[in-house]
Formats: sequence, structure tokens, C-alpha cells
Amino acid sequence: MSLLDYFRVTKASSASVAKERLQILVAHERSSRSQPSYLPQLQKELLEVIRKYVNVGQDAISVNFEQDDDQEILELNIVLPDHQAKKS
Amino acid sequence: MSLLDYFRVTKASSASVAKERLQILVAHERSSRSQPSYLPQLQKELLEVIRKYVNVGQDAISVNFEQDDDQEILELNIVLPDHQAKKS
Repeated sequence: MSLLDYFRVTKASSASVAKERLQILVAHERSSRSQPSYLPQLQKELLEVIRKYVNVGQDAISVNFEQDDDQEILELNIVLPDHQAKKS
Repeated sequence: MSLLDYFRVTKASSASVAKERLQILVAHERSSRSQPSYLPQLQKELLEVIRKYVNVGQDAISVNFEQDDDQEILELNIVLPDHQAKKS
């Protein structure tokens, strides 16, 4: 299953929910752990960029971060206010 | 299946590949199409942020963008040079 297929499946199961959502995933596969992770810092900068486009408070953003030996995953889920997205 | 589960499955199936990868997904569920998409512009800014952390050329980045009536998905796949990530 491709990653795009995953989103298609997710969409179908949540189609009855009218809220607008923005979901961002960052997955970093690492072949070595010799360097510190930059995902926590990257997360801050990504949120700064996203806030240029959507007008959301901190409480609308949920963050999930997981890591194991060779992969880190950062997940950002943002519930958007209906019809109030900033214009680009 | 949660999104994190998806990545766990993907990782298992690609465990034999030693390359470091950074994969970024942005999914925007829209309840109306009254406003233009900002994902193409957002994509540019996300790549600028990522380039602060990883030293990759344009040829290491593949971009996929899909949209239908109520969802847009932006997918960025970046093959990282081994052990040459910029320090944060």
C-alpha cells in the first residue's frame, strides 16, 4: 500500500466529519544514530511556516513524536477553523 | 490503522535498504473549495526549512501532489546522503 493510498483510506473513513484538517507527517529513516535528531527543531520551524497560511492557536495543534532505533516519526494534526484560513 | 502504524509497516518492508530517507506528507482535508490551495506555496517553504537541516540537491527530492474534491495531498521524498546531514 502506498502512502497516498493510506490517506485515501483515512479520508473515506472520516468523510462524515466536516471539519477541515491539515495533517503533516515527517518520517526520518536513519541508518545510524551518530548524530542528534533535528526533528524537534524542525517541528518548530514547520509550525512557523504553517502559521503563515492557517490561523490556528496552539490548542488546535496536536503533536506526536516517536522514535526507535532506526526511525523517527513526527506527526502534526491541525484542526482548521472553517472558512477562516488566511489567504496566501 | 493509525498513521504511525502505516510508517511502522513501511519501515519493516524497507529495512534492507540502508539509505537514509526523509519523507514528508501534508494532507489537507477541505470542506469547501472556495479558496485556492496554498499547498504548492507551502511546499516551497517547507523545502527551504528542510534544506537548513539536510544537505541535498534538487535531484534528491521527489515531489508528488494529488487533489480531488475534498482533499489535497503533498508528498515529499528526500534521499539523504549518508552521514552528511548538516548539524543543527
